[in-house]
Amino acid sequence: MNYHTERLQKQMAFLLEVDKMKNIIRQTYLSDGSRKENDAEHSWHLALMAIILSEYFDKDIDLLKVVKMLLIHDIVEIDAGDTFCHDQKANEDKKEREEKAAKRIYQILPDDQAQEYKSLWHEFENVSTKESVFANILDRLQPSILNLSSNGKSWLEHEVSKKQVLERNEMVFSGPEEIAEYMKMLLDTAVKSGYLK
Amino acid sequence: MNYHTERLQKQMAFLLEVDKMKNIIRQTYLSDGSRKENDAEHSWHLALMAIILSEYFDKDIDLLKVVKMLLIHDIVEIDAGDTFCHDQKANEDKKEREEKAAKRIYQILPDDQAQEYKSLWHEFENVSTKESVFANILDRLQPSILNLSSNGKSWLEHEVSKKQVLERNEMVFSGPEEIAEYMKMLLDTAVKSGYLK
Repeated sequence: MNYHTERLQKQMAFLLEVDKMKNIIRQTYLSDGSRKENDAEHSWHLALMAIILSEYFDKDIDLLKVVKMLLIHDIVEIDAGDTFCHDQKANEDKKEREEKAAKRIYQILPDDQAQEYKSLWHEFENVSTKESVFANILDRLQPSILNLSSNGKSWLEHEVSKKQVLERNEMVFSGPEEIAEYMKMLLDTAVKSGYLK
Repeated sequence: MNYHTERLQKQMAFLLEVDKMKNIIRQTYLSDGSRKENDAEHSWHLALMAIILSEYFDKDIDLLKVVKMLLIHDIVEIDAGDTFCHDQKANEDKKEREEKAAKRIYQILPDDQAQEYKSLWHEFENVSTKESVFANILDRLQPSILNLSSNGKSWLEHEVSKKQVLERNEMVFSGPEEIAEYMKMLLDTAVKSGYLK
Protein backbone atom coordinates (compact mmCIF):
# COMPACT_ATOMS: atom_id res chain seq x y z
CA MET A 1 0.00 0.00 0.00
CA ASN A 2 1.53 3.31 -1.03
CA TYR A 3 1.55 6.50 1.05
CA HIS A 4 -1.52 8.05 -0.57
CA THR A 5 -3.60 4.90 -0.30
CA GLU A 6 -2.71 4.41 3.37
CA ARG A 7 -3.52 8.04 4.16
CA LEU A 8 -6.89 7.87 2.41
CA GLN A 9 -7.71 4.55 4.13
CA LYS A 10 -7.21 6.21 7.52
CA GLN A 11 -9.38 9.16 6.54
CA MET A 12 -12.11 6.85 5.27
CA ALA A 13 -11.92 4.72 8.44
CA PHE A 14 -12.46 7.89 10.49
CA LEU A 15 -15.37 9.00 8.28
CA LEU A 16 -16.98 5.59 8.78
CA GLU A 17 -16.34 5.59 12.55
CA VAL A 18 -18.06 8.96 13.01
CA ASP A 19 -21.23 7.53 11.45
CA LYS A 20 -21.89 6.38 15.06
CA MET A 21 -22.72 10.04 15.89
CA LYS A 22 -26.12 9.31 14.32
CA ASN A 23 -26.83 6.96 17.22
CA ILE A 24 -25.76 9.24 20.07
CA ILE A 25 -29.00 10.60 21.48
CA ARG A 26 -29.21 14.00 23.18
CA GLN A 27 -31.78 15.21 25.71
CA THR A 28 -33.27 17.80 23.35
CA TYR A 29 -36.37 16.96 21.31
CA LEU A 30 -36.83 17.86 17.64
CA SER A 31 -38.89 21.04 17.15
CA ASP A 32 -42.05 18.93 16.66
CA GLY A 33 -41.40 17.00 19.89
CA SER A 34 -41.61 13.65 18.07
CA ARG A 35 -38.28 12.25 19.30
CA LYS A 36 -34.93 13.29 20.75
CA GLU A 37 -32.28 14.54 18.33
CA ASN A 38 -28.91 12.89 17.84
CA ASP A 39 -25.40 14.35 17.68
CA ALA A 40 -25.10 14.28 13.89
CA GLU A 41 -28.33 16.22 13.43
CA HIS A 42 -27.37 18.64 16.20
CA SER A 43 -23.96 19.29 14.62
CA TRP A 44 -25.51 19.92 11.21
CA HIS A 45 -28.00 22.34 12.73
CA LEU A 46 -25.25 24.29 14.52
CA ALA A 47 -23.05 24.51 11.41
CA LEU A 48 -25.99 25.88 9.43
CA MET A 49 -26.78 28.36 12.22
CA ALA A 50 -23.16 29.55 12.09
CA ILE A 51 -23.29 30.41 8.40
CA ILE A 52 -26.73 32.06 8.60
CA LEU A 53 -25.94 34.10 11.74
CA SER A 54 -22.27 34.95 11.12
CA GLU A 55 -23.07 38.64 10.45
CA TYR A 56 -23.73 39.18 14.18
CA PHE A 57 -20.21 38.12 15.11
CA ASP A 58 -16.79 39.77 14.60
CA LYS A 59 -16.23 40.74 10.96
CA ASP A 60 -12.77 39.14 10.98
CA ILE A 61 -13.91 35.80 12.44
CA ASP A 62 -12.67 32.65 10.64
CA LEU A 63 -16.08 31.21 9.73
CA LEU A 64 -14.65 28.03 8.20
CA LYS A 65 -12.90 27.34 11.51
CA VAL A 66 -16.17 27.85 13.42
CA VAL A 67 -17.97 25.45 11.08
CA LYS A 68 -15.21 22.80 11.32
CA MET A 69 -15.34 23.09 15.11
CA LEU A 70 -19.11 22.61 15.17
CA LEU A 71 -19.00 19.62 12.82
CA ILE A 72 -16.58 17.78 15.13
CA HIS A 73 -17.33 19.20 18.62
CA ASP A 74 -19.37 16.22 19.82
CA ILE A 75 -17.41 13.38 18.21
CA VAL A 76 -15.95 12.37 21.60
CA GLU A 77 -19.49 11.41 22.63
CA ILE A 78 -19.23 8.29 20.45
CA ASP A 79 -17.28 6.80 23.38
CA ALA A 80 -18.10 9.17 26.23
CA GLY A 81 -21.85 9.48 25.58
CA ASP A 82 -23.93 12.64 25.75
CA THR A 83 -23.60 14.26 29.18
CA PHE A 84 -26.76 16.23 29.98
CA CYS A 85 -25.66 19.77 30.87
CA HIS A 86 -27.85 19.94 33.99
CA ASP A 87 -26.67 16.54 35.36
CA GLN A 88 -24.11 17.56 37.99
CA LYS A 89 -22.92 14.05 38.83
CA ALA A 90 -22.31 12.99 35.22
CA ASN A 91 -20.37 16.19 34.63
CA GLU A 92 -17.79 15.31 37.32
CA ASP A 93 -15.80 12.83 35.22
CA LYS A 94 -16.91 14.22 31.83
CA LYS A 95 -13.53 15.76 31.02
CA GLU A 96 -11.64 12.52 31.70
CA ARG A 97 -14.05 10.37 29.66
CA GLU A 98 -13.97 12.76 26.74
CA GLU A 99 -10.17 13.13 26.67
CA LYS A 100 -9.87 9.35 26.46
CA ALA A 101 -12.41 9.27 23.65
CA ALA A 102 -10.64 12.06 21.73
CA LYS A 103 -7.38 10.14 21.95
CA ARG A 104 -8.92 7.02 20.41
CA ILE A 105 -11.18 8.54 17.78
CA TYR A 106 -9.01 11.34 16.34
CA GLN A 107 -6.05 8.96 16.23
CA ILE A 108 -7.83 7.02 13.49
CA LEU A 109 -6.93 9.96 11.19
CA PRO A 110 -3.43 10.50 9.73
CA ASP A 111 -1.25 12.13 12.43
CA ASP A 112 -1.36 15.71 11.12
CA GLN A 113 -5.15 15.70 10.91
CA ALA A 114 -5.48 13.90 14.26
CA GLN A 115 -3.53 16.76 15.86
CA GLU A 116 -5.45 19.44 13.97
CA TYR A 117 -8.90 18.21 14.92
CA LYS A 118 -8.07 17.24 18.50
CA SER A 119 -6.65 20.71 18.95
CA LEU A 120 -9.75 22.26 17.37
CA TRP A 121 -11.90 20.30 19.83
CA HIS A 122 -9.77 21.55 22.74
CA GLU A 123 -10.18 25.10 21.46
CA PHE A 124 -13.96 24.58 21.50
CA GLU A 125 -13.84 23.15 25.02
CA ASN A 126 -11.59 25.92 26.36
CA VAL A 127 -13.67 28.73 24.81
CA SER A 128 -10.39 30.56 24.42
CA THR A 129 -10.77 32.25 21.00
CA LYS A 130 -13.45 34.31 19.27
CA GLU A 131 -14.25 31.35 17.02
CA SER A 132 -14.84 29.04 19.99
CA VAL A 133 -16.97 31.68 21.76
CA PHE A 134 -19.15 31.90 18.61
CA ALA A 135 -19.43 28.10 18.42
CA ASN A 136 -20.29 27.76 22.12
CA ILE A 137 -22.96 30.47 21.95
CA LEU A 138 -24.71 28.53 19.16
CA ASP A 139 -24.33 25.27 21.09
CA ARG A 140 -26.35 26.88 23.91
CA LEU A 141 -28.87 28.72 21.76
CA GLN A 142 -29.92 25.78 19.56
CA PRO A 143 -31.34 23.52 22.33
CA SER A 144 -33.33 26.46 23.74
CA ILE A 145 -34.91 27.10 20.33
CA LEU A 146 -35.89 23.43 20.05
CA ASN A 147 -37.08 23.29 23.67
CA LEU A 148 -39.41 26.26 23.20
CA SER A 149 -40.70 24.88 19.89
CA SER A 150 -41.44 21.47 21.44
CA ASN A 151 -43.48 23.13 24.23
CA GLY A 152 -40.66 22.80 26.75
CA LYS A 153 -40.73 18.99 26.54
CA SER A 154 -37.14 18.37 27.64
CA TRP A 155 -37.13 21.17 30.23
CA LEU A 156 -40.34 19.81 31.78
CA GLU A 157 -39.07 16.19 31.78
CA HIS A 158 -35.94 17.23 33.65
CA GLU A 159 -37.71 19.87 35.79
CA VAL A 160 -35.21 22.49 34.65
CA SER A 161 -35.49 25.93 36.29
CA LYS A 162 -35.08 29.37 34.71
CA LYS A 163 -32.08 29.89 37.02
CA GLN A 164 -30.38 26.78 35.60
CA VAL A 165 -30.96 27.89 32.00
CA LEU A 166 -29.73 31.41 32.76
CA GLU A 167 -26.54 30.01 34.31
CA ARG A 168 -25.99 27.63 31.41
CA ASN A 169 -26.52 30.45 28.91
CA GLU A 170 -24.43 33.14 30.57
CA MET A 171 -22.15 33.11 27.51
CA VAL A 172 -25.04 33.97 25.18
CA PHE A 173 -25.84 37.09 27.20
CA SER A 174 -22.28 38.37 26.93
CA GLY A 175 -22.27 37.75 23.14
CA PRO A 176 -23.75 39.85 20.28
CA GLU A 177 -26.57 42.12 21.52
CA GLU A 178 -29.14 40.92 18.95
CA ILE A 179 -28.61 37.25 19.85
CA ALA A 180 -28.67 38.01 23.58
CA GLU A 181 -31.96 39.93 23.19
CA TYR A 182 -33.44 37.04 21.20
CA MET A 183 -32.46 34.56 23.92
CA LYS A 184 -33.93 36.79 26.63
CA MET A 185 -37.23 36.99 24.76
CA LEU A 186 -37.20 33.23 24.18
CA LEU A 187 -36.68 32.46 27.88
CA ASP A 188 -39.33 35.00 28.95
CA THR A 189 -41.80 33.21 26.67
CA ALA A 190 -40.74 29.85 28.13
CA VAL A 191 -41.34 31.07 31.68
CA LYS A 192 -44.71 32.65 30.80
CA SER A 193 -45.75 29.37 29.14
CA GLY A 194 -44.84 27.40 32.25
CA TYR A 195 -42.01 25.44 30.56
CA LEU A 196 -39.38 26.48 33.11
CA LYS A 197 -39.71 26.34 36.89
CA MET B 1 -40.02 45.78 15.39
CA ASN B 2 -36.79 47.43 14.20
CA TYR B 3 -34.74 46.34 11.17
CA HIS B 4 -32.30 44.13 13.10
CA THR B 5 -35.04 42.36 15.05
CA GLU B 6 -37.08 41.67 11.91
CA ARG B 7 -34.04 40.34 10.08
CA LEU B 8 -33.07 38.04 12.95
CA GLN B 9 -36.67 36.81 13.30
CA LYS B 10 -36.61 35.72 9.64
CA GLN B 11 -33.28 33.95 10.08
CA MET B 12 -34.52 32.17 13.19
CA ALA B 13 -37.77 31.16 11.43
CA PHE B 14 -35.67 29.59 8.67
CA LEU B 15 -33.42 27.82 11.18
CA LEU B 16 -36.51 26.38 12.87
CA GLU B 17 -38.12 25.39 9.53
CA VAL B 18 -35.04 23.40 8.46
CA ASP B 19 -35.33 21.28 11.61
CA LYS B 20 -37.75 19.25 9.46
CA MET B 21 -34.68 17.89 7.58
CA LYS B 22 -34.28 15.52 10.55
CA ASN B 23 -37.52 13.82 9.46
CA ILE B 24 -36.74 13.44 5.74
CA ILE B 25 -35.70 9.82 5.36
CA ARG B 26 -33.29 8.71 2.65
CA GLN B 27 -32.90 5.24 1.13
CA THR B 28 -29.41 4.70 2.56
CA TYR B 29 -28.98 2.81 5.85
CA LEU B 30 -26.61 3.86 8.63
CA SER B 31 -23.29 2.00 8.53
CA ASP B 32 -24.62 -0.52 11.10
CA GLY B 33 -27.77 -1.15 9.02
CA SER B 34 -30.03 -0.36 12.00
CA ARG B 35 -32.18 2.24 10.23
CA LYS B 36 -32.23 4.60 7.24
CA GLU B 37 -30.45 7.93 7.60
CA ASN B 38 -32.14 11.31 7.33
CA ASP B 39 -31.20 14.44 5.40
CA ALA B 40 -29.75 16.32 8.39
CA GLU B 41 -27.39 13.43 9.26
CA HIS B 42 -26.46 12.98 5.60
CA SER B 43 -25.65 16.69 5.21
CA TRP B 44 -23.49 16.69 8.36
CA HIS B 45 -21.62 13.61 7.12
CA LEU B 46 -20.93 15.22 3.73
CA ALA B 47 -19.71 18.50 5.25
CA LEU B 48 -17.31 16.58 7.49
CA MET B 49 -16.11 14.53 4.51
CA ALA B 50 -15.42 17.77 2.63
CA ILE B 51 -13.12 19.14 5.33
CA ILE B 52 -11.29 15.82 5.86
CA LEU B 53 -10.84 15.08 2.14
CA SER B 54 -10.24 18.62 0.79
CA GLU B 55 -6.53 17.91 0.12
CA TYR B 56 -7.47 15.70 -2.87
CA PHE B 57 -9.26 18.56 -4.63
CA ASP B 58 -7.96 21.76 -6.29
CA LYS B 59 -5.69 23.72 -3.97
CA ASP B 60 -7.55 26.97 -4.70
CA ILE B 61 -11.00 25.56 -4.04
CA ASP B 62 -13.28 27.64 -1.77
CA LEU B 63 -13.80 25.04 0.97
CA LEU B 64 -16.23 27.19 2.97
CA LYS B 65 -18.42 27.45 -0.14
CA VAL B 66 -18.34 23.64 -0.57
CA VAL B 67 -19.34 23.17 3.06
CA LYS B 68 -22.16 25.75 2.85
CA MET B 69 -23.42 24.01 -0.29
CA LEU B 70 -23.43 20.61 1.40
CA LEU B 71 -25.18 21.90 4.51
CA ILE B 72 -28.10 23.25 2.44
CA HIS B 73 -28.14 21.01 -0.68
CA ASP B 74 -31.09 18.86 0.43
CA ILE B 75 -33.25 21.51 2.13
CA VAL B 76 -35.73 21.47 -0.79
CA GLU B 77 -36.58 17.89 0.21
CA ILE B 78 -38.55 19.25 3.18
CA ASP B 79 -41.34 19.89 0.65
CA ALA B 80 -40.25 17.78 -2.32
CA GLY B 81 -39.27 14.63 -0.39
CA ASP B 82 -36.20 12.47 -1.02
CA THR B 83 -36.15 11.23 -4.60
CA PHE B 84 -34.34 7.89 -4.81
CA CYS B 85 -31.63 8.29 -7.44
CA HIS B 86 -32.48 4.99 -9.15
CA ASP B 87 -36.24 5.70 -9.31
CA GLN B 88 -36.70 6.84 -12.92
CA LYS B 89 -40.36 7.81 -12.63
CA ALA B 90 -39.92 9.95 -9.51
CA ASN B 91 -37.01 11.75 -11.15
CA GLU B 92 -39.20 12.99 -14.00
CA ASP B 93 -40.85 15.85 -12.08
CA LYS B 94 -38.09 16.18 -9.46
CA LYS B 95 -36.77 19.47 -10.82
CA GLU B 96 -40.19 21.11 -10.79
CA ARG B 97 -41.04 19.93 -7.27
CA GLU B 98 -37.69 21.07 -5.93
CA GLU B 99 -37.79 24.52 -7.57
CA LYS B 100 -41.16 25.14 -5.96
CA ALA B 101 -39.79 24.02 -2.59
CA ALA B 102 -36.71 26.23 -2.94
CA LYS B 103 -38.91 29.23 -3.63
CA ARG B 104 -40.93 28.71 -0.45
CA ILE B 105 -38.20 27.66 1.96
CA TYR B 106 -35.33 30.02 1.07
CA GLN B 107 -37.80 32.92 0.94
CA ILE B 108 -38.23 32.60 4.71
CA LEU B 109 -34.74 34.17 4.97
CA PRO B 110 -34.08 37.91 4.49
CA ASP B 111 -33.97 38.65 0.74
CA ASP B 112 -30.17 38.84 0.35
CA GLN B 113 -29.65 35.50 2.07
CA ALA B 114 -32.59 33.92 0.23
CA GLN B 115 -30.91 34.83 -3.06
CA GLU B 116 -27.47 33.70 -1.86
CA TYR B 117 -28.54 30.25 -0.72
CA LYS B 118 -30.98 29.56 -3.54
CA SER B 119 -28.21 30.43 -5.95
CA LEU B 120 -25.79 28.17 -4.06
CA TRP B 121 -28.30 25.33 -4.34
CA HIS B 122 -28.62 25.95 -8.10
CA GLU B 123 -24.83 25.86 -8.37
CA PHE B 124 -24.86 22.48 -6.66
CA GLU B 125 -27.61 21.18 -8.96
CA ASN B 126 -25.92 22.48 -12.13
CA VAL B 127 -22.48 21.05 -11.21
CA SER B 128 -21.06 24.06 -13.00
CA THR B 129 -18.11 25.05 -10.78
CA LYS B 130 -15.21 23.20 -9.15
CA GLU B 131 -16.88 23.63 -5.75
CA SER B 132 -20.10 22.01 -6.96
CA VAL B 133 -18.17 19.16 -8.61
CA PHE B 134 -16.41 18.49 -5.27
CA ALA B 135 -19.76 18.58 -3.41
CA ASN B 136 -21.46 16.27 -5.92
CA ILE B 137 -18.62 13.74 -5.81
CA LEU B 138 -19.02 13.47 -2.04
CA ASP B 139 -22.81 13.20 -2.39
CA ARG B 140 -22.27 10.10 -4.53
CA LEU B 141 -19.42 8.59 -2.51
CA GLN B 142 -21.06 8.75 0.92
CA PRO B 143 -24.06 6.47 0.20
CA SER B 144 -21.73 3.88 -1.35
CA ILE B 145 -19.59 3.84 1.80
CA LEU B 146 -22.68 3.33 3.96
CA ASN B 147 -24.12 0.75 1.55
CA LEU B 148 -20.97 -1.36 1.66
CA SER B 149 -20.72 -1.08 5.44
CA SER B 150 -24.34 -2.15 5.91
CA ASN B 151 -23.74 -5.26 3.77
CA GLY B 152 -25.41 -3.75 0.74
CA LYS B 153 -28.75 -3.47 2.53
CA SER B 154 -30.21 -0.64 0.43
CA TRP B 155 -28.71 -1.92 -2.85
CA LEU B 156 -30.21 -5.37 -2.23
CA GLU B 157 -33.62 -3.97 -1.23
CA HIS B 158 -33.83 -2.00 -4.46
CA GLU B 159 -32.09 -4.67 -6.58
CA VAL B 160 -29.54 -2.14 -7.78
CA SER B 161 -27.06 -3.31 -10.41
CA LYS B 162 -23.37 -2.51 -10.74
CA LYS B 163 -24.20 -0.80 -14.04
CA GLN B 164 -26.64 1.56 -12.31
CA VAL B 165 -24.10 2.46 -9.62
CA LEU B 166 -21.38 3.01 -12.20
CA GLU B 167 -23.63 5.35 -14.16
CA ARG B 168 -24.69 7.23 -11.05
CA ASN B 169 -21.05 7.59 -10.00
CA GLU B 170 -19.54 8.61 -13.32
CA MET B 171 -18.62 11.96 -11.77
CA VAL B 172 -16.53 10.28 -9.07
CA PHE B 173 -14.44 8.49 -11.69
CA SER B 174 -13.59 11.73 -13.44
CA GLY B 175 -12.60 13.36 -10.13
CA PRO B 176 -9.36 13.09 -8.10
CA GLU B 177 -7.50 9.87 -8.88
CA GLU B 178 -7.20 8.70 -5.25
CA ILE B 179 -10.95 9.05 -4.66
CA ALA B 180 -11.76 7.39 -7.98
CA GLU B 181 -9.46 4.44 -7.11
CA TYR B 182 -11.11 4.11 -3.70
CA MET B 183 -14.58 4.05 -5.25
CA LYS B 184 -13.47 1.43 -7.78
CA MET B 185 -12.15 -0.79 -4.98
CA LEU B 186 -15.34 -0.28 -2.98
CA LEU B 187 -17.59 -1.29 -5.87
CA ASP B 188 -15.39 -4.31 -6.69
CA THR B 189 -15.80 -5.47 -3.09
CA ALA B 190 -19.56 -4.90 -3.30
CA VAL B 191 -19.83 -7.02 -6.44
CA LYS B 192 -17.63 -9.79 -5.00
CA SER B 193 -19.81 -9.81 -1.87
CA GLY B 194 -22.97 -10.16 -3.95
CA TYR B 195 -24.40 -6.78 -2.91
CA LEU B 196 -24.80 -5.55 -6.48
CA LYS B 197 -26.43 -7.42 -9.38
